[in-house]
Amino acid sequence: MRLTSLLTKTQKTVSQEAESINAQLLLRGGFVRQEMAGVYSWLPLGLRVLRNVERIVREEMDALGSQELLMSALQPKEAWVQTGRWDTVDVLFKVPSQTKKEYALGCTHEEIVTPLVQAFVKSYKDLPTSVYQIQTKFRDELRAKSGVLRGREFVMKDMYSFHRTQADLDAYYARVSDAYFRVFARCGLQAKSVEASGGAFSDKFSHEFQVLTNAGEDRILTSPSWNRGQNEEVATLKEGDACPDHPTETLSWQKGVEVGNIFQLGTRFSEAFGMTYLDEQGERQPVLMGCYGIGISRVVGTIVEACHDERGIVWPKSVAPFQIHLVGLSGKTDEAQAALNAQMQEWYDALTSAGFSVLMDDRAGLSAGERLADADLLGMPLRILLSEKTLAVASAEVQWRQDRRSEMVLLDALLDLCKASFT
Amino acid sequence: MRLTSLLTKTQKTVSQEAESINAQLLLRGGFVRQEMAGVYSWLPLGLRVLRNVERIVREEMDALGSQELLMSALQPKEAWVQTGRWDTVDVLFKVPSQTKKEYALGCTHEEIVTPLVQAFVKSYKDLPTSVYQIQTKFRDELRAKSGVLRGREFVMKDMYSFHRTQADLDAYYARVSDAYFRVFARCGLQAKSVEASGGAFSDKFSHEFQVLTNAGEDRILTSPSWNRGQNEEVATLKEGDACPDHPTETLSWQKGVEVGNIFQLGTRFSEAFGMTYLDEQGERQPVLMGCYGIGISRVVGTIVEACHDERGIVWPKSVAPFQIHLVGLSGKTDEAQAALNAQMQEWYDALTSAGFSVLMDDRAGLSAGERLADADLLGMPLRILLSEKTLAVASAEVQWRQDRRSEMVLLDALLDLCKASFT
Repeated sequence: MRLTSLLTKTQKTVSQEAESINAQLLLRGGFVRQEMAGVYSWLPLGLRVLRNVERIVREEMDALGSQELLMSALQPKEAWVQTGRWDTVDVLFKVPSQTKKEYALGCTHEEIVTPLVQAFVKSYKDLPTSVYQIQTKFRDELRAKSGVLRGREFVMKDMYSFHRTQADLDAYYARVSDAYFRVFARCGLQAKSVEASGGAFSDKFSHEFQVLTNAGEDRILTSPSWNRGQNEEVATLKEGDACPDHPTETLSWQKGVEVGNIFQLGTRFSEAFGMTYLDEQGERQPVLMGCYGIGISRVVGTIVEACHDERGIVWPKSVAPFQIHLVGLSGKTDEAQAALNAQMQEWYDALTSAGFSVLMDDRAGLSAGERLADADLLGMPLRILLSEKTLAVASAEVQWRQDRRSEMVLLDALLDLCKASFT
Repeated sequence: MRLTSLLTKTQKTVSQEAESINAQLLLRGGFVRQEMAGVYSWLPLGLRVLRNVERIVREEMDALGSQELLMSALQPKEAWVQTGRWDTVDVLFKVPSQTKKEYALGCTHEEIVTPLVQAFVKSYKDLPTSVYQIQTKFRDELRAKSGVLRGREFVMKDMYSFHRTQADLDAYYARVSDAYFRVFARCGLQAKSVEASGGAFSDKFSHEFQVLTNAGEDRILTSPSWNRGQNEEVATLKEGDACPDHPTETLSWQKGVEVGNIFQLGTRFSEAFGMTYLDEQGERQPVLMGCYGIGISRVVGTIVEACHDERGIVWPKSVAPFQIHLVGLSGKTDEAQAALNAQMQEWYDALTSAGFSVLMDDRAGLSAGERLADADLLGMPLRILLSEKTLAVASAEVQWRQDRRSEMVLLDALLDLCKASFT
């Protein structure tokens, strides 16, 4: 894509939400727009990141054999009354209507998914089963803050599994845990699986997937190499203890952002809806459920918190809106400018033809400093710079955003370098 | 996908919404589930159709140079007050919150998109521009009916364009009109571009894209070969008149479903938000806007209304959840069944490896009649049937759902036939 065709422009400063790094950088780069406190629109560059995270999550959930569906955001009040949560979930938006009916606006989907799956699960042969969706959810937060980390409207993946036995639920729960580690690693995040309370529904732990950053609202007891941890509610270890898996490290309290959670619901919701199955003997048996969330838009914000420097965002290759940022510095004469423009166009075509996604800075009349500052702010993994100077030696200057290492590369070797960088 | 892995099952009858063919067939096939009147969840098979329609729409909007974004569903009341529509749009859901603020739940996005694009459009150099989104929308309908044709929650593509001059808006409007014909044709629908009132904002016509079916709520004056028409509000022609473009045909009133509309907003919203641009002389000028909608989920329902027979749905190839429905009839002996199962698995692997999407009926203990009835109901374009009888002559029976034409094909020629059928 050409920068002159892109709707958005970068901004040097933003006034809003100065306290949150993800909001600052996403707003300055034109990735999102704040519509209200806690409510963001995803602009073209930001939507590309969001879709990349969605794709990674979808691939890993599909690999678990879970089936994608899309449940309604509007939910019947009756279902929430049936589970006893209509008056207890304080972040539930309640929507009045012309018909005098009130609807729930989905912040979670147990009230929908349980009767939905119940309609198709009759016998032990229908179990286990698992479904998931990627959907916009709504929470009536009293205070929305931290940019896209905690909003009133956000994109979430929620998955629900259904089982005959505790052992089967446990086994699936462990597989989902492994898949979650893969999801976050593929998104460029180091997540830890943190023991948390199972809540009122279970005497088991649940697990939060936490990424350590100062923007986090949660406190986690962990150590640097440990991919596990304990949260404040359930901690049996204490600060200064040796890490159970890495005895040379001591545990300390760190701030974390919860990017996912997995939870055994047991029979909490199947009982509320009378969801049972017939076993081999024709006896009715209760169904055990698990639920598994990933905050898709929160992952994007967490990546920005975890992957940035003083110049801007450092997108991991897997989620970057574009792989390559192609920059041309202005020529000193009209002839030099014309030659440079021709080379830019040629390389844009060659790189996109070779399958790379390229953002080309084809804007007129900007200084080298302005162009390079924008490239740093927008954070594509590989910057390719063409100028009179580089073309004079039949070369481009390439720079990796990750470590800012740069080198001159002969144009003849440029395509191979790009291929090696993105495999 | 294997039918034994699929969450959903077909149903012989459904009690709900018996009046609407799309609801009946989509519910019976397990494509959707009705959560409440006018509110549906999209189950795995149905979601695949929805995504196929989305993909077609996205490709055509991208080809127009429009940029995809995702605006918030929650919208600030203040913006709706500013345009004067807070109290005049009766289908607008108004959502109260814990913070005492009220939000609008988006049924359309002029109130969001105008200030959003305004933030990035300063000069004539930034125009024209166009953005679109594919998003779940909400309408507080007093009466929801006709299955997924008119719901309280639905998926829609809405695009908004911004121009300097009426001539530029007119030219873009014409390009969008052409793209809309392509979208609907690619979805297997014959749409007509029907003149309708421009509403209060314009002395021009708007255009509705109408598909003629008895399920339609609108009345259209048109003729069989005419890809245009007039609606009741604006009709200057009358029943029995000769068709302007096909003089041998006479016009008559037909029922239609509106699957899309295009509309010139003029300065209605840019004026409300003070959106202007600086022209070459540095003078502030008003921005002209157009808006362009396609009801994505309504398109799915319209396809069912337009493409079905007494046995079930006849999905067009472009949107079918799977291309091929692979059926095996039960063998008479255990040996025959084992040989059949092995062949089924082999062909499932061969077809999916060759890039085809395949739904395989691997259920045990069903009669031939039950299997074939399900294949007809679910409506995949090509059915491949293996049985003792076909295997005895090294063949499969293939049947096209469209015209129910069937033939025996040698297994050696089966892959080539599939390739020829889906190019």
